[in-house]
Amino acid sequence: MCELLGMSANVPTDIVFSFTGLMQRGGKTGPHKDGWGIAFYEGRGLRLFQDPVASCDSEVAKMIQRYQIKSEVVIGHIRHANVGKVGLVNTHPFVRELWGQHWCFAHNGQMAGFAPPKGFYRPVGDTDSESAFCDLLNRIRQAFPEPVAAEALLPTLIEACNEYRRQGVFNCLLSNGQWLFSFCSSKLAQITRRAPFGPAQLKDADLTVDFQAETTPNDVVTVLATEPLTQNERWSLHQPGQWSLWRLGECVASGRVD
Amino acid sequence: MCELLGMSANVPTDIVFSFTGLMQRGGKTGPHKDGWGIAFYEGRGLRLFQDPVASCDSEVAKMIQRYQIKSEVVIGHIRHANVGKVGLVNTHPFVRELWGQHWCFAHNGQMAGFAPPKGFYRPVGDTDSESAFCDLLNRIRQAFPEPVAAEALLPTLIEACNEYRRQGVFNCLLSNGQWLFSFCSSKLAQITRRAPFGPAQLKDADLTVDFQAETTPNDVVTVLATEPLTQNERWSLHQPGQWSLWRLGECVASGRVD
Repeated sequence: MCELLGMSANVPTDIVFSFTGLMQRGGKTGPHKDGWGIAFYEGRGLRLFQDPVASCDSEVAKMIQRYQIKSEVVIGHIRHANVGKVGLVNTHPFVRELWGQHWCFAHNGQMAGFAPPKGFYRPVGDTDSESAFCDLLNRIRQAFPEPVAAEALLPTLIEACNEYRRQGVFNCLLSNGQWLFSFCSSKLAQITRRAPFGPAQLKDADLTVDFQAETTPNDVVTVLATEPLTQNERWSLHQPGQWSLWRLGECVASGRVD
Repeated sequence: MCELLGMSANVPTDIVFSFTGLMQRGGKTGPHKDGWGIAFYEGRGLRLFQDPVASCDSEVAKMIQRYQIKSEVVIGHIRHANVGKVGLVNTHPFVRELWGQHWCFAHNGQMAGFAPPKGFYRPVGDTDSESAFCDLLNRIRQAFPEPVAAEALLPTLIEACNEYRRQGVFNCLLSNGQWLFSFCSSKLAQITRRAPFGPAQLKDADLTVDFQAETTPNDVVTVLATEPLTQNERWSLHQPGQWSLWRLGECVASGRVD
């Protein structure tokens, strides 16, 4: 199993605090030694950093912690390989262009014998995760050759995610930079921080941040993670089948499928 | 105008020496302050680093110089913006998936009023370069829905590049990780290093490397750049209309169009 990290915010926000917590689970406080990746949207642009080594030892991870990239949408992932060997090509998040937008995807779980029909988007590596991402995009492109709002996509997205989870475990994060979609198959936690902000203490590292000093009263920042990253805040635990659509830090649609 | 950097090698080779020279031209010995990027193939995987700031000041560039990533194919670029504003979304190299392979492209030059037909691949940013890359991939996919060898692609590639250069200036590098294609419209230099290796002295920084200490007798490494990067070696200057296909450091096909 792997761990996911997602962020949706209404102002460009650095995710160094949450990223620092997650990185400890990559070989230090957790077993996810098989690579990690994180994608930051900057406007329509996307910065993708990946490393097929344990995140707690990664030079690239250290650089990101120093660099404090600010973004409105972030998707991160640390990997504990089950399908597909360890290597850059199998490292999440995965990226494809659809409708002239960079789409980004990360998955936690596995699907036994997953073999979607061959479509336009094809996996480069060997993971069931990348196959599912390609299949998802193939379905979207077939249903919507031209851009539509996220709300119009939801039935297609939810139906596909629900199919995938019946074949195993399928927690995922998906974004085109304008919105962030989350689907919980077994495990996903979330917190939305807004004024009044307070201090937060990481579970996985001896690090506290006082969000009040780092934010303005109008900031809204939602963080999603496989398990809560802080120990002194109340995270919401999503239920199996629960999906949500996030925009500018707020949940703009949500529901649950059986 | 921008500057290109390409490498094709028969063993995973670090490009730190050439990269260090190129980075100086990004705001120090050259005017290319508007961002830079470099893509390293690792097997089928691709590591892409980009920064929309001057390369001589970039934290990401410093990390790459320390990290010594080894690769058989590299494409790098520093940007002096003409079409499309400065920003991550307009920063080369550009990447798309075709046939389950990561394809990577960088361009030096500009094309006035370039408006290719809308196709499957669409630009995310505003550059003529990304539009040309998308158009090139659309032509390839239309002619070859399934994978073919690079040699079979050449007529399509060369015809497209020749069309693009008639609309302005079109020096480019293109790769799918297995081969590297270069096209010279106005300016491109190349050197192939093989045994006996000697010392090389950068033009743009006070740095010498003794390749004999860094290589084995069987290594073959070709470096392409807009202008020669070293001052004590003989670079070949490509002619307008000259194209080449590189595989494992060797030129496996070349020619020239009028």
